[in-house]
Amino acid sequence: MAAEQDPEGRAAARPLLTDLYQATMALGYWRAGRARDAAEFELFFRRCPFGGAFALAAGLRDCVRFLRAFRLRDADVQFLASVLPPDTDPAFFEHLRSLDCSEVTVRALPEGSLAFPGGLGEGGVPRLEVPGPSLVATNAARLRLIAGPEKRLLEMGLRRAQGPDGGLTASTYSYLGGFDSSSNVLAGQLRGVPVAGTLAHSFVTSFSGSEVPPDPMLAPAAGEGPGVDLAAKAQVWLEHVCAHLGLGVQEPHPGERAAFVAYALAFPRAFQGLLDSYSVWRSGLPNFLAVALALGELGYRAVGVRLDSGDLLQQAQEIRKVFRAAAAQFQVPWLESVPIAVSNNIDEEALARLAQEGSEVNVIGIGTSVVTCPQQPSLGCVYKLVAVGGQPRMKLTEDPEKQTLPGSKAAFRLLGSDGSLLMDVLQLAEEPAPQAGQELRVWPPGAQEPCTVRPAQVEPLLRLCLQQGQLCEPLPSLAESRALVQLSLSQLSPEHRRLQSPAQYQVVLSERLQALVNSLHARASP
Amino acid sequence: MAAEQDPEGRAAARPLLTDLYQATMALGYWRAGRARDAAEFELFFRRCPFGGAFALAAGLRDCVRFLRAFRLRDADVQFLASVLPPDTDPAFFEHLRSLDCSEVTVRALPEGSLAFPGGLGEGGVPRLEVPGPSLVATNAARLRLIAGPEKRLLEMGLRRAQGPDGGLTASTYSYLGGFDSSSNVLAGQLRGVPVAGTLAHSFVTSFSGSEVPPDPMLAPAAGEGPGVDLAAKAQVWLEHVCAHLGLGVQEPHPGERAAFVAYALAFPRAFQGLLDSYSVWRSGLPNFLAVALALGELGYRAVGVRLDSGDLLQQAQEIRKVFRAAAAQFQVPWLESVPIAVSNNIDEEALARLAQEGSEVNVIGIGTSVVTCPQQPSLGCVYKLVAVGGQPRMKLTEDPEKQTLPGSKAAFRLLGSDGSLLMDVLQLAEEPAPQAGQELRVWPPGAQEPCTVRPAQVEPLLRLCLQQGQLCEPLPSLAESRALVQLSLSQLSPEHRRLQSPAQYQVVLSERLQALVNSLHARASP
Repeated sequence: MAAEQDPEGRAAARPLLTDLYQATMALGYWRAGRARDAAEFELFFRRCPFGGAFALAAGLRDCVRFLRAFRLRDADVQFLASVLPPDTDPAFFEHLRSLDCSEVTVRALPEGSLAFPGGLGEGGVPRLEVPGPSLVATNAARLRLIAGPEKRLLEMGLRRAQGPDGGLTASTYSYLGGFDSSSNVLAGQLRGVPVAGTLAHSFVTSFSGSEVPPDPMLAPAAGEGPGVDLAAKAQVWLEHVCAHLGLGVQEPHPGERAAFVAYALAFPRAFQGLLDSYSVWRSGLPNFLAVALALGELGYRAVGVRLDSGDLLQQAQEIRKVFRAAAAQFQVPWLESVPIAVSNNIDEEALARLAQEGSEVNVIGIGTSVVTCPQQPSLGCVYKLVAVGGQPRMKLTEDPEKQTLPGSKAAFRLLGSDGSLLMDVLQLAEEPAPQAGQELRVWPPGAQEPCTVRPAQVEPLLRLCLQQGQLCEPLPSLAESRALVQLSLSQLSPEHRRLQSPAQYQVVLSERLQALVNSLHARASP
Repeated sequence: MAAEQDPEGRAAARPLLTDLYQATMALGYWRAGRARDAAEFELFFRRCPFGGAFALAAGLRDCVRFLRAFRLRDADVQFLASVLPPDTDPAFFEHLRSLDCSEVTVRALPEGSLAFPGGLGEGGVPRLEVPGPSLVATNAARLRLIAGPEKRLLEMGLRRAQGPDGGLTASTYSYLGGFDSSSNVLAGQLRGVPVAGTLAHSFVTSFSGSEVPPDPMLAPAAGEGPGVDLAAKAQVWLEHVCAHLGLGVQEPHPGERAAFVAYALAFPRAFQGLLDSYSVWRSGLPNFLAVALALGELGYRAVGVRLDSGDLLQQAQEIRKVFRAAAAQFQVPWLESVPIAVSNNIDEEALARLAQEGSEVNVIGIGTSVVTCPQQPSLGCVYKLVAVGGQPRMKLTEDPEKQTLPGSKAAFRLLGSDGSLLMDVLQLAEEPAPQAGQELRVWPPGAQEPCTVRPAQVEPLLRLCLQQGQLCEPLPSLAESRALVQLSLSQLSPEHRRLQSPAQYQVVLSERLQALVNSLHARASP
């Protein structure tokens, strides 16, 4: 019940959010007397998404939350009983009721690490979820690499995410991957993602201009002095602005101006204008300037404008020119640098254009193309049994693509003397770790012969995070993991980091692991 | 609190799963004295997904569940207070606490109806979600059209869906669109989707063959007579099977056979063999036959085999041949028709091949390509304000793609004398409905002149489902909506139903609606 009352606990995946075959297999294991056998599973992936050479590990917090909350409630067991054979032994359902994470061990890449095709995380019972590469986090990291460090990136894909809660995951991992904020309030409440947002076109178009606010007065920012009728003040400024821009004072839409005044009354310190409900040049921009200058007289500074249609780069350049001219004309220097935010189906290509040298765009809102990953909407992860009771297991299907690597494993990242990443090596858990400065013989995937490598540094990749159900160390915060993403990307060499046709990063096998693979192959094919 | 204890209520989207600008705009409206103004919003989409000419409406149940449960809890209001300006009037937060659905009216297309680019659903307050076209349901319907009515389609995309709960939505709408079942247990528990699943490769590879089940005995299906050691019986049958197939009795993997026996002991009436953990021909198939024939001796019939790699169509043809020959050899006629299930990254093209005339495949499991819709992972829906206080509103941006249709509307579907769909017509809510047999003048989108149509039947499209927060009629069950999908598709003419390069279905405007659009344009562009 504690989980029910805690929003974080409530956000944990429910135990029946699983494939039915996990329940049928559980009955199969139980009937075979093997329900308490220790098993190790491993999650990995075979190809990096989006044609890149890296992915980001993410999901550890969700995994740990799920495991620690794992308990089948009465209603869950009753539902399983309704879909399993009617003559199933009632003792099996007692067994299900007793299941929790108290015998589960999880080793995993730290949240936000670079992940490459190869072994990632392991756990101690069947039916264990482990964290893996995150498509959305990887996608967000690519978009951040394209945007460069200066542009502010806002994730606004909630309405395009899958189902009511798909958006929570997408917003969280967009932030992890390098976005600055999200429009998704729940991601702020439950995950601590910074949230952002101002107004929609419907707010603007809902005003006709004939509305009378109950309290039109706004006090000066400093708090001293009498309040001012903001709408009246904006009307005065409108005449100056229209004269400056060469527009008739009737041209700007009065409803749009009323909407801006209403928003400014509610958010005098955070006024932003959405410019393209009617005409940017003949309505949105002069109305914004009139309200921003009226606010300015009271000591408030507008925080931005937003565009959601048309040629965003081109309009931003022209708006910046207007801001500079108006700043000079009306002697309000801060107006020059009012941030310009843009959105409207921005993908990697459009982002590259908006981020080019000299662009006047400051904030970029991305929805669909960060949360749905249209370049590649899914990542084929594989979650396989690698050992039972300490004995290695391997899927030796005739399809070489679907074979797995047997045994309980350790993984190390080898670095060169300049701190750059050389390769990852997978080996059996019982092997000694590679030593810095010592030559190592390893097998690249599919190679006929081993090669040698002499790493300057060796980093263990998998951290023990849950042991017998107990958290081994506090999980890093989302913001800490987000910082690790940027640090990790900086260690990646440019040929692995580039987004188009990168060099492939190698994940190699130790000699002993390769020998185990060979021996299991030989045993299966007499 | 009732919602917290009810799994359906718990499945409702939480009120803060929304964009922050909904909260900032709410403050803006409140500060402007307009928080209680009645507003109408409309959801529509501009282009059908996947290059087709239809989409399916879905989401009404989720929408109603969300609305009826809508209440901001203290923690929600506190979070909003933390992200809104610190000097926000406390009375605004009291206003937020008072919000519920008691003034909300929703009209919508019935769940599972055909939806075309045009107006869909309306509601009575800002911040209302309304149901719209479902990408996953539309995708599932396409896959069903390709598969034909006979093949059984299993959705198994849980692990590829976005985030922990994205899968619940995907499984539900896959079923709605025409799938037969899902692997997702939660979709069964919460939504009543039939669930299915048997065993994974890990179950097979977890057995070495040396395991001894605590109780190896299986009683006959009829319940009479002594139990039999199933493993021993399968071993005897293995010799017959290997002799028949020309295999050495040592070739089939003993661990795989032990796994099949364990599964058969747990599910004697629902035994299915997963054939490709090792070698289909030298191990999976003979082991399956041995266990199935042992079960058959006890009066049980195996329910299927499954393949997850290789050329699925080709293997199914050969497996069927083996089944026929073994059925004759061992005089067990039911073996001929044991269903063959296949899976492995099946997309529309692969499905068309598997569904071709003469295919021996009976059950098709589809994961990634039904839940992530890789052909088009998102659908650009638009949710716009169309009226405030009964006055029409319209977004008149300079980008014609982004303009909206103003006013409170009704929608009708016009049918020809043969019952086929002619076109949909949007009109103002106050206009009289089109009459069957009477000529009607309508404006196709972008046309310079109206055209005329004489419908043989006229069906109103939008149903009143929520009025002042009260449900107007019971919502149809998921299975009823699923049946409506198939009925609706059958009414669509073949040129609109075909999946590649279909004819576009027209959604036209009434003369009065077209005149309103023109007058609002004229007013905005003096």
